[in-house]
Amino acid sequence: MDFSLTEDQQLMVQAIRELMSRENWEAYFAECDAAHTYPQRWVEALCEIGVDTILLPESAGGLDAGWGTIAAVWEELGRWGAPTYVLYQLPTLSSVLHVGTPEQQEKILSYVGTGKQIWNFAMTEPGAGSSFNDMATTYTRRDGKVYLSGHKTFITSSLGVDQLVIMARNAEDMSQYTEWFVDMSLPGITKEPLDKLGLRMDSCCEIYLDDVELREEDMFGEEGQGFARTVADFDLERFLVAACDYGWALCAFEDAARYANQRVQGGQAIGRYQLIQEKVASMWTELTNMRNMMYEVAWKADTDQLGRGDCSMLKLYCTQAASRVVDQAIQILGGIAVTGNHRVARFFRDLRVERISGGTDEMMILTAGRAALKEYR
Amino acid sequence: MDFSLTEDQQLMVQAIRELMSRENWEAYFAECDAAHTYPQRWVEALCEIGVDTILLPESAGGLDAGWGTIAAVWEELGRWGAPTYVLYQLPTLSSVLHVGTPEQQEKILSYVGTGKQIWNFAMTEPGAGSSFNDMATTYTRRDGKVYLSGHKTFITSSLGVDQLVIMARNAEDMSQYTEWFVDMSLPGITKEPLDKLGLRMDSCCEIYLDDVELREEDMFGEEGQGFARTVADFDLERFLVAACDYGWALCAFEDAARYANQRVQGGQAIGRYQLIQEKVASMWTELTNMRNMMYEVAWKADTDQLGRGDCSMLKLYCTQAASRVVDQAIQILGGIAVTGNHRVARFFRDLRVERISGGTDEMMILTAGRAALKEYR
Amino acid sequence: MDFSLTEDQQLMVQAIRELMSRENWEAYFAECDAAHTYPQRWVEALCEIGVDTILLPESAGGLDAGWGTIAAVWEELGRWGAPTYVLYQLPTLSSVLHVGTPEQQEKILSYVGTGKQIWNFAMTEPGAGSSFNDMATTYTRRDGKVYLSGHKTFITSSLGVDQLVIMARNAEDMSQYTEWFVDMSLPGITKEPLDKLGLRMDSCCEIYLDDVELREEDMFGEEGQGFARTVADFDLERFLVAACDYGWALCAFEDAARYANQRVQGGQAIGRYQLIQEKVASMWTELTNMRNMMYEVAWKADTDQLGRGDCSMLKLYCTQAASRVVDQAIQILGGIAVTGNHRVARFFRDLRVERISGGTDEMMILTAGRAALKEYR
Amino acid sequence: MDFSLTEDQQLMVQAIRELMSRENWEAYFAECDAAHTYPQRWVEALCEIGVDTILLPESAGGLDAGWGTIAAVWEELGRWGAPTYVLYQLPTLSSVLHVGTPEQQEKILSYVGTGKQIWNFAMTEPGAGSSFNDMATTYTRRDGKVYLSGHKTFITSSLGVDQLVIMARNAEDMSQYTEWFVDMSLPGITKEPLDKLGLRMDSCCEIYLDDVELREEDMFGEEGQGFARTVADFDLERFLVAACDYGWALCAFEDAARYANQRVQGGQAIGRYQLIQEKVASMWTELTNMRNMMYEVAWKADTDQLGRGDCSMLKLYCTQAASRVVDQAIQILGGIAVTGNHRVARFFRDLRVERISGGTDEMMILTAGRAALKEYR
Repeated sequence: MDFSLTEDQQLMVQAIRELMSRENWEAYFAECDAAHTYPQRWVEALCEIGVDTILLPESAGGLDAGWGTIAAVWEELGRWGAPTYVLYQLPTLSSVLHVGTPEQQEKILSYVGTGKQIWNFAMTEPGAGSSFNDMATTYTRRDGKVYLSGHKTFITSSLGVDQLVIMARNAEDMSQYTEWFVDMSLPGITKEPLDKLGLRMDSCCEIYLDDVELREEDMFGEEGQGFARTVADFDLERFLVAACDYGWALCAFEDAARYANQRVQGGQAIGRYQLIQEKVASMWTELTNMRNMMYEVAWKADTDQLGRGDCSMLKLYCTQAASRVVDQAIQILGGIAVTGNHRVARFFRDLRVERISGGTDEMMILTAGRAALKEYR
Repeated sequence: MDFSLTEDQQLMVQAIRELMSRENWEAYFAECDAAHTYPQRWVEALCEIGVDTILLPESAGGLDAGWGTIAAVWEELGRWGAPTYVLYQLPTLSSVLHVGTPEQQEKILSYVGTGKQIWNFAMTEPGAGSSFNDMATTYTRRDGKVYLSGHKTFITSSLGVDQLVIMARNAEDMSQYTEWFVDMSLPGITKEPLDKLGLRMDSCCEIYLDDVELREEDMFGEEGQGFARTVADFDLERFLVAACDYGWALCAFEDAARYANQRVQGGQAIGRYQLIQEKVASMWTELTNMRNMMYEVAWKADTDQLGRGDCSMLKLYCTQAASRVVDQAIQILGGIAVTGNHRVARFFRDLRVERISGGTDEMMILTAGRAALKEYR
Repeated sequence: MDFSLTEDQQLMVQAIRELMSRENWEAYFAECDAAHTYPQRWVEALCEIGVDTILLPESAGGLDAGWGTIAAVWEELGRWGAPTYVLYQLPTLSSVLHVGTPEQQEKILSYVGTGKQIWNFAMTEPGAGSSFNDMATTYTRRDGKVYLSGHKTFITSSLGVDQLVIMARNAEDMSQYTEWFVDMSLPGITKEPLDKLGLRMDSCCEIYLDDVELREEDMFGEEGQGFARTVADFDLERFLVAACDYGWALCAFEDAARYANQRVQGGQAIGRYQLIQEKVASMWTELTNMRNMMYEVAWKADTDQLGRGDCSMLKLYCTQAASRVVDQAIQILGGIAVTGNHRVARFFRDLRVERISGGTDEMMILTAGRAALKEYR
Repeated sequence: MDFSLTEDQQLMVQAIRELMSRENWEAYFAECDAAHTYPQRWVEALCEIGVDTILLPESAGGLDAGWGTIAAVWEELGRWGAPTYVLYQLPTLSSVLHVGTPEQQEKILSYVGTGKQIWNFAMTEPGAGSSFNDMATTYTRRDGKVYLSGHKTFITSSLGVDQLVIMARNAEDMSQYTEWFVDMSLPGITKEPLDKLGLRMDSCCEIYLDDVELREEDMFGEEGQGFARTVADFDLERFLVAACDYGWALCAFEDAARYANQRVQGGQAIGRYQLIQEKVASMWTELTNMRNMMYEVAWKADTDQLGRGDCSMLKLYCTQAASRVVDQAIQILGGIAVTGNHRVARFFRDLRVERISGGTDEMMILTAGRAALKEYR
């Protein structure tokens, strides 16, 4: 076994480190978080060093560098407290290459390098969380056009993106789930932004679709294949959430460890007290576990060995372990952690949302548990 | 043993229930929380039914009803999601009766029934969390006057109260810790409000004291007795924090349990899934433990049997258990818990602060642990 | 509320204390545990002070003292490390009064005061843990007699008792579950003792029933009512397991606390180290919770307020919390806990079995969770 | 990064697999455990395929294969439920090469390939657990001889080994800690075996040393260097404990997962219930973490990057995580896990001892915590 980064990965990490130390990005993040705005200037800077093309094939001008490189980049960004959750759409660019029409590909790829919010996928409905059976959004064909109607909820990024890929059922045959590539400026679309406990640099809306007129060529992928296509993206999405959360835990740990060495109470650094050492040992252990699991899953993905439950287990563990690490960091930092907008308080709020969005803990438990049991049938 | 409320307590609880169902107080709380303002209209309503006099002796016009009644009232208020943390000063009114001068007593008692923010106590300093040795605020006598200088931090309510009891050391004899009853409108006092993760209906400030001129009669209690007097109040303070947190847990549990019975996923109420039942069983267990421990500690206090570690154990357990219960409630409620300002998200933020303010978890652990060990020497 | 014992309960506890300090019972328990034998001499001594009649009505010569007294007695016995699990049949004596024939009543009540193993109930089968549907033991009527055949497993006490109440299905109508009062000396009964990780002072056997001939009057309760009758006893059984486990936790805690105050490491008593204080605080908290919950459930039972999930929650919490407390006691005691047959190692083994026998943790979770949810429909 | 075994390691694992499937070793282990005897026949079989020489340099006829290979072998052995804890002395053979005299080396290396118990190290004393200051065993020089006196406790393997390396202080200069290579057949040595909760295939004794006469050349390493030498071995020892414990967890998991797929309750395999899936997901996660951490530490050791706290963190995590996994396996297996000597019950007992022997959890916490904090000074 070999637990070291490749030279290319080290160079990429080095580039990230330089970018992140160039200015006080934390102030910018705090500002964006308070204003509930997307940190576009920062994403642009990342695009300049190619972060949006890590997974794109070389044929599309990408680095084709694999999940291992994503892991290394997300880890370093996380160490600086960066909101890597807003980057979810960069690695998913490749989805458009797999199933998009040339027109759709051109549109999406035109965003490469810009740092702008591009698109996202809309599935969840008020009456249908993770169960597709209850989905009520439909499309109907009339006079050569397609009409979309329904109500989607908790749709991430939906306030800022120009297009949304929306899952709907064929009104004439409810067993057909099909995705539609929808221009968000079309008539009939209403967005209602939701206030959120965390992840505030990205938006989240209720989307009302009232007879939105589409063309046949706006279909995304094949008719009736919407469900299958979506599932294919879940693994990467879960991997990204895990990498993001691990990064925050790393940042919070480093903030807390430095503080424990400096902060004096009762005549000595608080790091000399057993209760603090215990927290540090526990945090360090969880960070080690998260990092190893993340890189192992990346290695599996990059060598075509990804198991069915791997990304679910990774998301489950990282989201929960990161929550524990950040919680302990807050306890070490004490009063300064919960006043004055310290970044660990932001992580604390963000992580609470992560355990629900992108698939709840419970979904991850069941997926991972069933996959593990299958190995022993 | 008898685990039932007295008739008087039941009547008080009934009165609270009526008050709380009279209007949609939750909307008011959400508004106050967003605006970082004290919910005065609600506190006034509570005062109308005597909540501020529960612990006051009958001689001072109070109900003299004991901690058991506090527990029952806080429990019922908590069930409605109320921010009982802003009420901490009501039960502490009796402190002024013990050590205050007649002038001080008159001043403080004039607030009874008004619902206004009255006072608070200021000890914590940037360089002195829970260790008194490092305290740097001092008082000096000059020309028959007393001059207070220093820097206090994380001072709860300090933006809104008219007076603050400030702990300082005698500049001529640093072994003397004395409290001073300070009118906050005096020259030389600067307040700098801190943003907070939670408990936002109460303020929290940095307080800078620059040669604040006081009279000898502004001393609160006896010279050199400041530390001892403060310690006497810690137990009640911890009890109140615990009662507050337990109340939120109860509210979150009830919100989640109702939702689990109604919300349908995959064709059945989510309450029929084992993972939800497990959460509910765990929450119910913790609520039972919190409630019993709270009433037992109240009973001990009311029968003069309070042990040294009892209130520390209570705060430790309730704050942590309430955090776990609220966390599970969020997980059951899912998306709606973390969007749209659901009250459980507020509890989640509030509780995170509770584990630090009013004595950190770690302080509670050490106090409780040492007290328990002492019994076996 | 009132958290004190009645005078009668205090007298009973005092009697237990005297009995337990009369000799080194621990040596006797260790001996019985190693030899896998029932501690009859000790049970006899308990019967002398009436422990077997606490729940018996006065009309049957009992104390009619309620669950609260059981709790107090079990608590005090537990404090001395006693194996109260072998006493489960004493409080269940009253079952025979409810449904037994005069002949059965006479037989069972003849054991009062003797300390002997009396009887137990046999339900579990290899293919039917907690699900009755899979039960395969049947009874058939032939020539005025009843014939019992089947295979029961994990039957506690079955090596030592003279009679067993065995649940079986009517071979002619499998929907009828009926209990039979079986003399264990009858032909056709084979017992195969099982080795056990814990609870070794009581036996546990496989029971093979090969056409065991019974009389109609050996029916226990009414035909087809076996299931209902059994369920009625579950609550008491779970209560007793919880009380037993809490007792061990108390004993382990006291052993560990005394040791922590005496054992010197690095120049000071280990009780002065934060990691030990933390364990002590946690143990003390859990003991407080167990005790309160146990007495509250007893109070509910004694005042006809017992809820459906109460005893399940109690068993679940006490068995798990006691396991945690004993685990921490072992860690404090270190090497001496895991060598030389220290009693905490016995508790550790015993408790592991308790989480499975008498209804698994999982059964308790589901029962408690569903009962709690029902309150919010 | 690369998470795959080398070809050599795969071959070694294959050889282990063949050896372990050759006969029902579990029956042999159960027998040895019940009889408290060392499983010599099994260790001999391992030596035949070179397991005792994995870490020995090629110059000494070893494989010089590194910790990574130890990890792979221990993992596979553990999967079969093997007591790899009795093998601790095989990898420590190399210690004699570092500091032993030629005579000592010859003696120890003569055991290679035999599978016999060779030696162990004796430090712990009744009054000195992990603190060297309290050590009371001394050596005195008299008439050209050295005399050893004192009392060691909890000395693993000491009943069966031919030689023991005993730490003692120079009676003339208590600051000197020196190790002595002691033939256990010498006069003046008394062994008193201790009963143990677990790890019963190896012995554990009180050792009384009454003026045991040694030669100067029986010194092990240099005078006054005993403490330093010992510390050097701690890392490997902790690594081995971790690898052993992880192996048991793997075995228990596989037993439980297979059972969950087969055992039917309420009409379906219990693996279809959410509470079981949850346990499986949790176990699988912990196993992944243990495995990754173990291989990462091995990789660090094999590439000279081992940090000060790495092996402590590894022992801490693996011992605790393995305990949790085995606990969950028992819960899934239910009654059969705690009766009839199922191997998971043995693991359960063994693991409880592991959290104390070879350095308590608390020692590991403090060592790991301090090492992590040091990185952030």
